Amino acid sequence: MSQKNILFIMLDQLRADALSCYGNTVVDTPNIDRLAHQGVQFNRCYIQGTSCGNSRASYYTGRHVRSHGASWNGWPNRVDELTLADHLNPCGMNTYLMGKTHMKPDVAGMARLGVEPQSELGRFLSNAGFSQGEHDDGLHTVGVAGGYGGGGDPAYFDYLRKNGYAAKNPWATWANAVEDENGILRNGMYLKHGHLPARVDKAHSETAYTTDRAIEMIAQFGQQNWCLSLSYIKPHWPLAAPAPYHQMYRGLELPQANKCSAQKQNAHPIYQAFMELPQSQTYSNDQYREHALPTYYGLVKEIDDNLGRLFASLEQQGQSQNTMIVLTTDHGDFFGDHWLAEKDLFHDVVTRVPLLIMDPSSAANASRGTQCDEMVCAIDLIPTFVEWAGGEPQWQWLEGRSLVPVLHASLDAQKVDFDRDCVVSECDYGVMRFAKDLGRTSYNARMTMLFDGRYKYVHCLGFDPMLFDLQEDPNEHMDLGRDTGYGGVRSQLSEQMLDWGAGLKNRVTVSQETFNHRASGAAGKVGILIGYWQQEDVPVALQLDPEVSAS
Amino acid sequence: MSQKNILFIMLDQLRADALSCYGNTVVDTPNIDRLAHQGVQFNRCYIQGTSCGNSRASYYTGRHVRSHGASWNGWPNRVDELTLADHLNPCGMNTYLMGKTHMKPDVAGMARLGVEPQSELGRFLSNAGFSQGEHDDGLHTVGVAGGYGGGGDPAYFDYLRKNGYAAKNPWATWANAVEDENGILRNGMYLKHGHLPARVDKAHSETAYTTDRAIEMIAQFGQQNWCLSLSYIKPHWPLAAPAPYHQMYRGLELPQANKCSAQKQNAHPIYQAFMELPQSQTYSNDQYREHALPTYYGLVKEIDDNLGRLFASLEQQGQSQNTMIVLTTDHGDFFGDHWLAEKDLFHDVVTRVPLLIMDPSSAANASRGTQCDEMVCAIDLIPTFVEWAGGEPQWQWLEGRSLVPVLHASLDAQKVDFDRDCVVSECDYGVMRFAKDLGRTSYNARMTMLFDGRYKYVHCLGFDPMLFDLQEDPNEHMDLGRDTGYGGVRSQLSEQMLDWGAGLKNRVTVSQETFNHRASGAAGKVGILIGYWQQEDVPVALQLDPEVSAS
Repeated sequence: MSQKNILFIMLDQLRADALSCYGNTVVDTPNIDRLAHQGVQFNRCYIQGTSCGNSRASYYTGRHVRSHGASWNGWPNRVDELTLADHLNPCGMNTYLMGKTHMKPDVAGMARLGVEPQSELGRFLSNAGFSQGEHDDGLHTVGVAGGYGGGGDPAYFDYLRKNGYAAKNPWATWANAVEDENGILRNGMYLKHGHLPARVDKAHSETAYTTDRAIEMIAQFGQQNWCLSLSYIKPHWPLAAPAPYHQMYRGLELPQANKCSAQKQNAHPIYQAFMELPQSQTYSNDQYREHALPTYYGLVKEIDDNLGRLFASLEQQGQSQNTMIVLTTDHGDFFGDHWLAEKDLFHDVVTRVPLLIMDPSSAANASRGTQCDEMVCAIDLIPTFVEWAGGEPQWQWLEGRSLVPVLHASLDAQKVDFDRDCVVSECDYGVMRFAKDLGRTSYNARMTMLFDGRYKYVHCLGFDPMLFDLQEDPNEHMDLGRDTGYGGVRSQLSEQMLDWGAGLKNRVTVSQETFNHRASGAAGKVGILIGYWQQEDVPVALQLDPEVSAS
Repeated sequence: MSQKNILFIMLDQLRADALSCYGNTVVDTPNIDRLAHQGVQFNRCYIQGTSCGNSRASYYTGRHVRSHGASWNGWPNRVDELTLADHLNPCGMNTYLMGKTHMKPDVAGMARLGVEPQSELGRFLSNAGFSQGEHDDGLHTVGVAGGYGGGGDPAYFDYLRKNGYAAKNPWATWANAVEDENGILRNGMYLKHGHLPARVDKAHSETAYTTDRAIEMIAQFGQQNWCLSLSYIKPHWPLAAPAPYHQMYRGLELPQANKCSAQKQNAHPIYQAFMELPQSQTYSNDQYREHALPTYYGLVKEIDDNLGRLFASLEQQGQSQNTMIVLTTDHGDFFGDHWLAEKDLFHDVVTRVPLLIMDPSSAANASRGTQCDEMVCAIDLIPTFVEWAGGEPQWQWLEGRSLVPVLHASLDAQKVDFDRDCVVSECDYGVMRFAKDLGRTSYNARMTMLFDGRYKYVHCLGFDPMLFDLQEDPNEHMDLGRDTGYGGVRSQLSEQMLDWGAGLKNRVTVSQETFNHRASGAAGKVGILIGYWQQEDVPVALQLDPEVSAS
């Protein structure tokens, strides 16, 4: 390869089962599927945080939420937390962003260290190392107290205005609004309007714009090695799709929601609280859900079409053979499954995300088109990228492992012994309105899920655990967390979680080299000879003559 | 009070039972005891890390080792980790150091953030916020590969030379060396020489020098509010005491080592490895131990005498009524107990440390001379200091709690309901030579101890746990970690440890104010209205008219 590039595509709130390569029979996603055919499809990739912000922070740092601490949307990364750029730049790879990160600057941390937020370093730290490219978190809603976000208008506003969508906030007024049958402007946030097209041509949608910008950026990268984090906001809400995507899947037979009435009986208090949320009530209404799902599918299809354009451009620019393409998402979407909406609990539909990796190198030829059933994680991507780029992962920070052995396995050896006995995902629901009603403070509204390949165990601080047996109950309908017959299983998983917590990478300031030096007994050579009766008892190689040297 | 000052005295490797106020009948420590008589004596204060560096990092950050990550001697604090100075400066209190910290700079972290190590900020970050005063880690040994430490000669070298102790390294040649009966220079590191006086007058010992400097510094502080971290290296080895302290307790009846032969039967593999260390072998020899203990006691007595000078000076300077005095240590010393030497395991003699707090304010009058049996922690000191100084603790970082309610309790209410159900202490033994033999890597040589007031449970990653019942076995001779009769106890403690880990303060970049704002439902006011069917379903106060605002 003349270059080594990584195109790291992250969709937002994408259910794995919305892709045809993961089994959807309504939506056809041939461009995404091509990554599966030309690369490896991972069937058990789990995210580490259950919302946008914390999940992305894990993708961008290669660390569990408990380690990076950015446990909710908009909670800043610590200024000294290494991110993708810190890991890839030493490999001679420049990192760029197009789209969303959901990161906020650690203003207090920067102020203490004298870093100007507007300086190059300040911008680097403010956005998880993505100081180059275009940042747009993609949510520009307006409410009774004004606009969401802040930090000025995104470039997309200007783009829309230039293309004839005049408004102070063309995102809210055009791209994510619809006009109803009476010509009244309606907010694309409300599901009722999902059958109406967004007030924007598909050529000017957020997805199209994001793709256009990515194509332009790649064209400008030239001969350098690059990693582009291409982060679409869709199919995340507002569920407003431009024509023809708004109606493409309307009137077809849709998959039923994965739920059963037994789930509502004697529900775990936290699960109960999530079920009572307005959004869960809405999506539990099958009529509403079936009105919204075609729009969601349309947004997925729109992304697939745009990725087709992107991949064609990559080919035209002669970069296909140099570029690893990775596609995943920050988390899924309940969309009515389990009587829930959104995310933040640990059922597979949220935590098990699609992951496709197409490695163009010849070393990956044998694995093309194969599927991997090993448990892998969002935090595995950075080690994978670093190894693929030829670098040395900084293991004092990184808590995942490289997937390169899977990508470079021969077809027979597709069952690489990955030797991972569990994956862990976390949720800090402290800012949810119900947290206080459940007696939680801002520091103890914590859930931790451990999945060992069969059982999914959820430790809930202050409550009984939840437990699901995915072998006997793949639909996750039966919470065994208080079932007296499963005490032994719970103990074992609890113990495994304790081990997990004790093995996290908190000693981040010590490189492996420094550690090895210390572990080699270096102290004894400089006179740290502890608890010897006399010099004669010390290993000869460490004895000084005379006992005390003034040197 | 015209000023509010804190004199924070930390001794190094001090056993609680070496002080007369904690029951020693050989050594008399009247000056230290006076703090107990005028303040509160804490009988169950536990440290969070079992070595100098990690324990101090917990004292200096107010956080558990798992949170700050500086898990061994010389492992740097992260550059963005707040320390004592960061917490006290906003209260209008300036922090100073005299003596040891055992901190090293996070060179890589500073380089990434563009901080020059020699700048004021660099020096602040390099030494846990102690940029003012005099830093001397107190170990200046010499071995076959040269001197320990680095970073230039301490001021104490020059001081010794000026006082007639000519040498390139007068610490090793004079202050911590002895001359034997044949006039041969001997290394004070070897216990055999403990009956000989250090080659320095008691007026010029490290302890005396450290005290002199503290007296000078306090005299210069003037009218500002100050916190002086006065950190003695002694009674830490080398066990070389100046006359007359070297022989003051020689020939007296000494306490026996707390050990029994049953401890050696079927010992836990990690405990076994610690017992096999050379220093453990030495101290398990009663003859050697009884030769060393009088020297240790002498060093304690020397400190007590010097603290008498310091307290008298404080009185003379009119600062006694303005100054809270705190005395503690980073950890204890096995000194042959349990067939061990040094530290790094969790028996009370190491983890339960002396803590005396004398609050001069009238609010503390009722508690003077009382003892507190609540479980308290090293990490409680920063919240105590901040509250006492009139500030607001930054709870997003701090994992302890303020002891001011104990200090300000009335005598009857001495049993303040402290509502703490456990204390936790940690050890990362990865650099110990035996770690590799036990199959440990650099990231999983971790032990975590939880003490609930009765049981002491030690989670050992990769091994069975240890368990001690301090009610039935206060000497901690019987490890019940594999006793089948205690499975239920172990499960409960393991669960408690899981809760502890899940509740640690990792969300450090978010202030309570920011959190509360988010938790108040701020997002809905700026249009984040998730999963509603139509505007009419939204709470009226959040509805816009029309649905979409261009503002």
